[in-house]
Amino acid sequence: MTTEQAFNLNCPLPIGQYEHATLAHGGGGRLMQQLLERLIRPAFDNRWLDQRHDSTVLDIGGSRLAFTTDGYVVKPLFFPGGDIGKLAVCGTLNDLAMSGAKPLFLSASLIIEEGFPFADLQRILHSMGETARAAGVAIVTGDTKVVENGKGDGLYIVTSGIGSIEHRMTIGPSSIAAGDDILVTGDIGRHGVAIISEREGLRFETSIASDCADLSGLVAELLAAGCELHCLRDLTRGGLASAVLELARDAQLSIELDEAAIPVLPQVSAACEMLGFDPLYVANEGQMTLFVPPPETERVLALLHQHSLGRRAAKIGSVTSHGEARVELRNAFGIKRVLDLLSGEQLPRIC
Amino acid sequence: MTTEQAFNLNCPLPIGQYEHATLAHGGGGRLMQQLLERLIRPAFDNRWLDQRHDSTVLDIGGSRLAFTTDGYVVKPLFFPGGDIGKLAVCGTLNDLAMSGAKPLFLSASLIIEEGFPFADLQRILHSMGETARAAGVAIVTGDTKVVENGKGDGLYIVTSGIGSIEHRMTIGPSSIAAGDDILVTGDIGRHGVAIISEREGLRFETSIASDCADLSGLVAELLAAGCELHCLRDLTRGGLASAVLELARDAQLSIELDEAAIPVLPQVSAACEMLGFDPLYVANEGQMTLFVPPPETERVLALLHQHSLGRRAAKIGSVTSHGEARVELRNAFGIKRVLDLLSGEQLPRIC
Repeated sequence: MTTEQAFNLNCPLPIGQYEHATLAHGGGGRLMQQLLERLIRPAFDNRWLDQRHDSTVLDIGGSRLAFTTDGYVVKPLFFPGGDIGKLAVCGTLNDLAMSGAKPLFLSASLIIEEGFPFADLQRILHSMGETARAAGVAIVTGDTKVVENGKGDGLYIVTSGIGSIEHRMTIGPSSIAAGDDILVTGDIGRHGVAIISEREGLRFETSIASDCADLSGLVAELLAAGCELHCLRDLTRGGLASAVLELARDAQLSIELDEAAIPVLPQVSAACEMLGFDPLYVANEGQMTLFVPPPETERVLALLHQHSLGRRAAKIGSVTSHGEARVELRNAFGIKRVLDLLSGEQLPRIC
Repeated sequence: MTTEQAFNLNCPLPIGQYEHATLAHGGGGRLMQQLLERLIRPAFDNRWLDQRHDSTVLDIGGSRLAFTTDGYVVKPLFFPGGDIGKLAVCGTLNDLAMSGAKPLFLSASLIIEEGFPFADLQRILHSMGETARAAGVAIVTGDTKVVENGKGDGLYIVTSGIGSIEHRMTIGPSSIAAGDDILVTGDIGRHGVAIISEREGLRFETSIASDCADLSGLVAELLAAGCELHCLRDLTRGGLASAVLELARDAQLSIELDEAAIPVLPQVSAACEMLGFDPLYVANEGQMTLFVPPPETERVLALLHQHSLGRRAAKIGSVTSHGEARVELRNAFGIKRVLDLLSGEQLPRIC
């Protein structure tokens, strides 16, 4: 991508380019944003949607609760490091954790394709149950539908979750301040590379497993230590770049990222090079970025490094100013390029 | 169905008949129950699932909340009386209302098939927003995925909901008592007949629209009047018979229903006869059955009759005893037959 192609994040969205859904409209990039802004938000119009975060914070009966939902259509259903069941539970736990909520309860809705083997379903359900129990949450309600052969793809899962917020911070885009440091919990791109290698039957020298993991325990440790966190965002579809670009747009931030500081495993780099992917845009399922005030940075990094999911945590950039949405990546030679949302996802059906 | 075919509701479920999912496993009948009991419950195993109700009641921060989820795969997406969007919102509102909860917040997860027209999506989203606003609830969080052409069927929607319970009753299967009267809010079978006629291009003399409606306002009126309600259950997949049979099994009840008292519109009866369907098993999306102690029956019926969604409400039976799961239907001549769950749904993808 060059700066010429850069999409001005402050411009109104273009209208009417597409009359039908394309795979890119579900890819976490610019087309999905247009779908959200032009069709979905206007139809549902309410003030809670303005939080623009992974989970929505609600005041119910004097409690602050987080509520979220996500559909999982990953292909293949089983991949190195996980399966759709683990993904569906971790993804929703993570969305709750991104508001600083403690996950409490999940729901699971299954859309099964006729002919799907019950043995596979059982493995996936077991994986969901196990992942939920490990996080101390229960899947308390669900639904099952079966669609005809050729009207699904084995199994789709939608999980929703409720969590409780037991601190006084507002952890979300609106709390990001100019000067905030930007951290990441670990190396990026493993989930996407694991999926594509399984899907295409590729074998790399070192096998690459998805990073699929529940981040809620890690977030709970940061909160228990009293860390001041401005915003958390897990890196899923569209990778680190899309997550940071979305926050920049939603909170009108100028951000500078330091390319050399962003952890990428050599085998992931090599695979991305071979596949023609930019690891910045490759999906993750067990990494998050954190926006923290600079006095907190060292302490947060130290806590992350002590946790199995944060060993490779690093400071990767900072918020330079408020007012204009812009994300720049500075390379090792000090040369900057403007990052932009891709139109869709490099890999459809990554999660 | 004859009594010889009757499935003993107290027997352990048969094992291993199917190795792959069939449409019947999503039909709300016996096969779906087996799937739930043998694969899903053991995997998720927790005490909340034992409530076995349309929504699960949770204690969070001193509040009693109801939580529910449902997937919608109805075919066609638009039908007389509604569309998948209205259905997805009403269905989840109704599941919350069945615990006596006041619906507060919904989530919506969309699984869109590549090539789906945005004009149709916009109509459906509008319908969701409108139905939610009319009920005084907001759709506060969501997700969008797009799957390849041939891996979906236009649009699937999963909605989840949170409601608050602002009374002291436990409205659910565990509260049903021997002697309870069984009421229904109106005539049965309209949703199923509307769907099949639209799907098959059938035209009956009188057009039959789905009864798709939000019952939460009606439930709120009964609660505001201080009615004692033991159990509520909306009649969806599998119709009135399946709803009553499920409750009989879950709460170990013997139930007698009076066939002549069950309201069925003449045009629905005629359509069912022509199609070979039993209206008792045909889906509804705006009817519920109520289990109330006899001293409450007249007052509840009077309140139902005053409401637009309860004008045809009737007492249709009673709980004869506790201990053995058994549902009998007494016809106009006093002859009884034992009702049983069908293996699946007469009409796949009804909701």
